Amino acid sequence: MIIDCHGHYTTAPKALETWRNRQIAGISEPAQMPKAAELKISDDELRESIETNQPKFMKERGGDLTIFSPRASFMVHHIGDFAVSSTWASICNELIHRVSKLFPENFIGAAMLPQSPGVDPKTCISELDRSMKEYGFVAINLNPDPSGGHWISPPLTDRHWYPIYEKMVEWDIPAMVHVSTSCNACFHTTGAHYINADTTAVMQFIQGDLFKDFPILKFVIPHGGGAAPYHWGRYRGLAQELKKPLLTEQLLKNVFFDACVYHQPGVDLLTKVIPVDNILFASEMISAVRGIDPRRGIITTTPSATWRRSGRSAPRTAARSTKATRGGSIRVSTRR
Amino acid sequence: MIIDCHGHYTTAPKALETWRNRQIAGISEPAQMPKAAELKISDDELRESIETNQPKFMKERGGDLTIFSPRASFMVHHIGDFAVSSTWASICNELIHRVSKLFPENFIGAAMLPQSPGVDPKTCISELDRSMKEYGFVAINLNPDPSGGHWISPPLTDRHWYPIYEKMVEWDIPAMVHVSTSCNACFHTTGAHYINADTTAVMQFIQGDLFKDFPILKFVIPHGGGAAPYHWGRYRGLAQELKKPLLTEQLLKNVFFDACVYHQPGVDLLTKVIPVDNILFASEMISAVRGIDPRRGIITTTPSATWRRSGRSAPRTAARSTKATRGGSIRVSTRR
Repeated sequence: MIIDCHGHYTTAPKALETWRNRQIAGISEPAQMPKAAELKISDDELRESIETNQPKFMKERGGDLTIFSPRASFMVHHIGDFAVSSTWASICNELIHRVSKLFPENFIGAAMLPQSPGVDPKTCISELDRSMKEYGFVAINLNPDPSGGHWISPPLTDRHWYPIYEKMVEWDIPAMVHVSTSCNACFHTTGAHYINADTTAVMQFIQGDLFKDFPILKFVIPHGGGAAPYHWGRYRGLAQELKKPLLTEQLLKNVFFDACVYHQPGVDLLTKVIPVDNILFASEMISAVRGIDPRRGIITTTPSATWRRSGRSAPRTAARSTKATRGGSIRVSTRR
Repeated sequence: MIIDCHGHYTTAPKALETWRNRQIAGISEPAQMPKAAELKISDDELRESIETNQPKFMKERGGDLTIFSPRASFMVHHIGDFAVSSTWASICNELIHRVSKLFPENFIGAAMLPQSPGVDPKTCISELDRSMKEYGFVAINLNPDPSGGHWISPPLTDRHWYPIYEKMVEWDIPAMVHVSTSCNACFHTTGAHYINADTTAVMQFIQGDLFKDFPILKFVIPHGGGAAPYHWGRYRGLAQELKKPLLTEQLLKNVFFDACVYHQPGVDLLTKVIPVDNILFASEMISAVRGIDPRRGIITTTPSATWRRSGRSAPRTAARSTKATRGGSIRVSTRR
């Protein structure tokens, strides 16, 4: 089974965005604030939004199951307060749950958390628990910068985040470290903020001692690990300077990179530099970058066919690390 | 001639740091503020700080001339106001000038600018002019985030920066986009802030239209271009989505990547993905990462010997793009 560990519901029916725009308008004009129940999307609409999209590409390219989460760039934790984030996360997670019930062969859920800048992460626990218990989700997305590009939260290795980590251990789930839309004009969302956040998280994990406190905690760094694999020599050198163990000890027992690198030389570097057990197949499809690559004539995404053809074990790693538990739901565990 | 386009004076005599610490103390206690003239470093001390260091490694590895600038992590533009930055930049640039006079075969200068958060970049012009006119420097380092990790300046494509660009055109000099020490706990200086800034700058140049206004402006993105070459497929896709010309048109006529990628697979990717005319040899030596790589038994730095052995033209590109002008000083021009 080929598992794609990084898919967002980027094709949700327009009604979702419309409701969200009303919610955002309601922040300044409370009388306009819509109720969650006012969002009505039928199963047929959900089916329609999906069936000509992700499963078609998955079939064409040989993927089987996608770990599916709400659209990352729509999380936008910096808009509104915790109550706004809470309602929005709840709606988005429920839609993911419905999609995964409608297409159980294709999707299994990962939760968006109701993060909000400056708010204690433990406020996210209730939605996290609900997503695991009621929806059978298998992972969460954790935003290291709910401010959207101002980076005012402490590093991921700080105790600030520990309530989330305790729950991750309790549910035995990994977190994908994933920011949302940037509201800082310096950072283009998908071209800078996403990649910078990935790089930043890797360096935080190298610098800190988080995995002494949580030896079985697992993180997936999306977008091929940001800049980290390309600069692996730099990170090996920095770990040494910081008198940390080798990266294989300090980082790679707990940190995994997805394969979302949209060109073959990048994928080649990733698989050459990072041990294959630390790479999870992923396509971020239908992705943040949706164009047709004129050089290849296909949608810009991880060249997944190559993985299968090459016989490399990376996609198999994802499959191998998946086990059926809890009444048939599929859980991702990268524990070795 | 093999030119290394990225060297900082990381081995300056201790007296420099001591003076700087007094200056920083003087910000809160003005009575303690030292005069510039109180810093005394003899030519012998300068010679001693250099001769057993950079030229030795350059000789060992086959480099000829290094474009040499003040230590990037010591620029720390976020400490103090413009007056503090101005005195500090002036001192640091003068030392670079003295080193390049003492070792004219080995070094030629690039200027640090007296940037300060929230201060108009045109305040830097006087130091820039002085560095070119009096010192014969051939480049500048431009910090896109003088706040040190809070990113409160506009993107590099904003008119905010135009006074610097007008001077760059006037003097026909390139700028290396280079941040300094991070004061944001999220960002490790050399492991996250540097690399993020590189990635951010590349995406700003893709997103903006700066080179329509300044067709001959030239930037060097250090540290192998941050994450950009590794994610070249993503950037090609984003340029397409943004309806920009191909990266060869939109970016690569004006933007060049240095070769500071501290492991062979990274260098291989860089030279495979980026046209060779856009790669400038650089070692960032004696670098931000100074350890001995246990796998190679040498200082962690760009494996320069490989460039020479491989016969690739990247180092030759740097040489080819260098021309002697103005009474024998060497200027770097990447114009084709």
